[in-house]
Order: sequence, then C-alpha cells, then structure tokens
Amino acid sequence: VILTVTPNAALDVTYRVDALRAGGTHRVDDVHTRPGGKGVNVTDVLTQLGEPVHATGFAGGDLRDELPGFVPIAGHSRRTVTVLSTSDGSATLFNEPGPHISPGEWAALVERFDDLVTNARAVVLSGSLPPGAPLDGYAQLIRRSPVPVILDTDGEPLRRGLAAGPALIKPNHDELTRLLGRAPGDLRADCAELGVPVAATLGAHGAFLSTPEGTWRAEPPRAVQGNPTGAGDAFTAAFARGIAAGTAWPVILADAVALSAAAVNTPVAGTFHEDTYREFADHVRVQEG
Amino acid sequence: VILTVTPNAALDVTYRVDALRAGGTHRVDDVHTRPGGKGVNVTDVLTQLGEPVHATGFAGGDLRDELPGFVPIAGHSRRTVTVLSTSDGSATLFNEPGPHISPGEWAALVERFDDLVTNARAVVLSGSLPPGAPLDGYAQLIRRSPVPVILDTDGEPLRRGLAAGPALIKPNHDELTRLLGRAPGDLRADCAELGVPVAATLGAHGAFLSTPEGTWRAEPPRAVQGNPTGAGDAFTAAFARGIAAGTAWPVILADAVALSAAAVNTPVAGTFHEDTYREFADHVRVQEG
Repeated sequence: VILTVTPNAALDVTYRVDALRAGGTHRVDDVHTRPGGKGVNVTDVLTQLGEPVHATGFAGGDLRDELPGFVPIAGHSRRTVTVLSTSDGSATLFNEPGPHISPGEWAALVERFDDLVTNARAVVLSGSLPPGAPLDGYAQLIRRSPVPVILDTDGEPLRRGLAAGPALIKPNHDELTRLLGRAPGDLRADCAELGVPVAATLGAHGAFLSTPEGTWRAEPPRAVQGNPTGAGDAFTAAFARGIAAGTAWPVILADAVALSAAAVNTPVAGTFHEDTYREFADHVRVQEG
Repeated sequence: VILTVTPNAALDVTYRVDALRAGGTHRVDDVHTRPGGKGVNVTDVLTQLGEPVHATGFAGGDLRDELPGFVPIAGHSRRTVTVLSTSDGSATLFNEPGPHISPGEWAALVERFDDLVTNARAVVLSGSLPPGAPLDGYAQLIRRSPVPVILDTDGEPLRRGLAAGPALIKPNHDELTRLLGRAPGDLRADCAELGVPVAATLGAHGAFLSTPEGTWRAEPPRAVQGNPTGAGDAFTAAFARGIAAGTAWPVILADAVALSAAAVNTPVAGTFHEDTYREFADHVRVQEG
C-alpha cells in the first residue's frame, strides 16, 4: 500500500463561463466540485492505476464527509476556485491559504500517520502545510517513517524536510530556484548539492532525475495540449509506485514522464488519459546526462 | 415577529486581491465568508434594527450549521464568490444556481412556514427559488399566510407570486422590465396595472411607491458611495418593519430610502451604517407623484 498525506486538502471548485469580465456579474450554470490538493490528486491517479493506496491529511467543513480517512478539524478546509473561460480557453485561479491547525490536530495527524505507515511500502507528502502546522511538520513525518518518503512541497517545509532525508524530492523549476536560492544552471551539479535524489520537472521539456546511482533526462515523444494542473501529481504517483516496487530509476523516470503527459491530456486533475499513457509508455526518450 | 424565507440561501465568499488578472493565479490571503442570500441579508438588517425576526429557508452542506432555523437538505447550498480588486475598486461576481430541492424537502419548508407564520406579523419572501422548487412556490406560501407578505424575487416565481396577492412587491428596474414585458415608462400607470402595491427601487434615484392609497417618490438627500449589494435588502427590511407596525406608506418609503442608502455605506451586505441612517432618516424627500 502507498500512503499519501495531504495536510492542506482543498475543495476544488471549477466554474465554466463564456468569458471572464472583470467587474462583471457571472451567472455560473456549470459548476464542478471535487476534493483536491496535490496529495488527493496523487491518490486518485494511483487508484486509476489500480494501486492500493491509503490517503490521510486534514479535512474540515464540507470535506469531512468527502475524505473519510482524514483527520477532522475544527476549521474549514480551503477552497480553490478555477474560472475556465470557454471563449479564449484561459483559466483564472484563486487559491485560499487554508484553515488554522491546532497543536492537538497536528498531533492527531502524526498519530494517524504512525498507524497507517506500518502497512505502507512508500509514503507521499504533498502540497503546502496549512497555517498553524509546524514548519518542520514534513521533517517530523519523514523521520518517523520506516519506508521511503517522497516529498513534494515548497519553501521552508521543503527546506526542513530535505534535512530529514526523504527518498526523493520533486521540485519544479520555480521550487528548485527557491530551494537553491538562485536559478538552476547545471542541473547535475545543482541537484547533487541537495544531497538526496531529486526529480525535477521541466514542463513540456520533460524531467531530470539526479540519484547516487546516476542522472537521467527524459522527454515525452511529442507535446501534449491540455490542462497542466495535476500533471506534476501524476508524475509523483509514478515515482511512488516505482519506489514502492523497487523499480530501476530510469524506468521510473520514463513511466513518470508518460503518465504526466497523459494527465495533461485530461480536463480534470487527478486523472490521466489511458490511451495517451499506453501510447507514450514505450516511447519516452531517456538518456543519461 | 417578522418571518423571512430564503429558499436559495448562499455561502457568500469574498476574496480581496490586489488586481484581478484574467488567466492568472491569485493567492488569496484575505478571505471572508458569511451566510448570504437576500432573505438572510433582510434578517441581518432587521436584527441590527432591534426587530424580532425568525428566519427560515433551505440550508445544505456547510450552511446547515450556520443557519439553524433552516430546513436541512441533501444538496449543498450554493456559493457566491465576489472578487474585490483593491487597485481599481471593482467587484467581479460569480453566482451558482443552487442545489436541487426534492418534493419532500419543499413540503418540509411549507410545514416549517405554517408553523412559524402563526407568530408573525409580516412575512418576507426573498430571492430566487432553487432548482426543483415549484415555480409557484412563493404563490403557495402567500396563499397560506394569514399576515401581509412582501415578495422580492424575479421572473416566473414573481409572476406567479403576484397572482396570489402579496401585500407588496419590490422590483428593481430590470425586474420590473421583465415583469411588464417592456421597459417601464410612466411608473404610475405601469405599477397600477400590476394590481398590488409596488415599491420600485431606482438605484441612486431613490424609489417609487404605488399603492391603492396613493403614489409617492422618494430620493436620498445626497448620493452615497459604497457597496450597493444588499441595499435592496435593507429597503425590504424597512418595509417589513413598517408593514408589520401599520405605519403609513410615505413614512415607510422615507425610512426605506434612508436605510437603503445607509446600507450602501458599509462594505458587507446585511449591515447598515448607523450614523448615515440617523442623518438621512429625517432628510429623505418624499413627494406625491
């Protein structure tokens, strides 16, 4: 079983409108809601892959009913609102910061984690920490885990988590820039100095993987149009599955790039296009470098 | 006691951002939420006035805890999202249509209404009907009410409600246009043909009141800057209080225009600025016409 942890789960609300008019009033007839947050997306992709997965985190308000394995909290989980404009295909996003977490609620999550991790072969820690959660919260969980942990977060929680020795971090270009304190130049040297395996996602250019056993680059066979939200979470899901199974690094990397491209090819985060995944799975170019 | 009914109550979510960028991602640190919907605003204004009030309607999801006198439903109450841009002061609104109401849920609201109306001296029916509610839903409640009913809605529910003989309807210019099937011209003749008392709100130009006892116009003593959302609900609250107390029509009209201007002068719907209200209360110009 793979265990995913989403401390800042969200209610993802999507509005489809003809055109977004600043200062206007929009009657929205097409409303779609789903539980979201990066770890929830990873969970959904693993489920679509047929992988057994346990998901936990914090859930408040309406999300309490939707995420039964999560620790209930007094506050309300955050919303994300995405306004899709059908006239020009643009997406406008509004992201709330999240509910305040009390020390007792954090302790309850740690207890839930200790309980669930005993059955896990790999752990995924995903997304931001909500206000009130300790900045070393992810570091705490990494230190308590007897199995490999993939850490996908940003800023201070990433910096502190890194020091606790995760099995892999998965920064994108902006997150890597903040972590290094400069724009990445020579990815090989930049990632090596971080001291843990790094899978850096490079948008349409694929990904770079740095490990003690070697470094690899991978690119999808062709560009894919669609919704990039959730592509990074599909990438993480592939690494979680591969690390749990003891798969070789370059094989995991190829799988992750294929799955990520197949996620771009669907309108909803947390899902992937199965035909695209099958088509790409054998054709991702991986090279050492 | 005044009874208010809000069948399509909402969770009003307000985001304050520096500037709204279409196609951009906004991290929203300033999030404000409150129960809303026109009848909830009327209730809040009456409460601020010190008037005893009972509020009912439908509440689903997170609103169930927030609106305890409401009939709980299986669906989720709608959200409204308002994005306030501090750079240019604009407000961009997104309004969801509302949850689906079952026949059993509608019957439960009628039962709750029958129960509460026995203690009421006036009733306010406010806002849209949610999907699934009968289009003659307001007409049903008007026919069951032993006390005067103020109806503030739009479209077919207003048309059908009108036929049931409310004590007053409160259309704005657009609602009156839809009800008449043409732009209003001579307000006196246009309102007279509707067959019930009409208080038509005219934005910054004040209001027009048509009754069997006479017709009056009223204007605020000066223009007020601010947030017009909820001004119409303050106007309705004044009429509910006046009708319940048997106050003379032109006195109610003056009070409603003053209270409505005082509601524009606050940032949040359902509240009014007490100093502005006191200042305007004696200085609204009312004339027959």
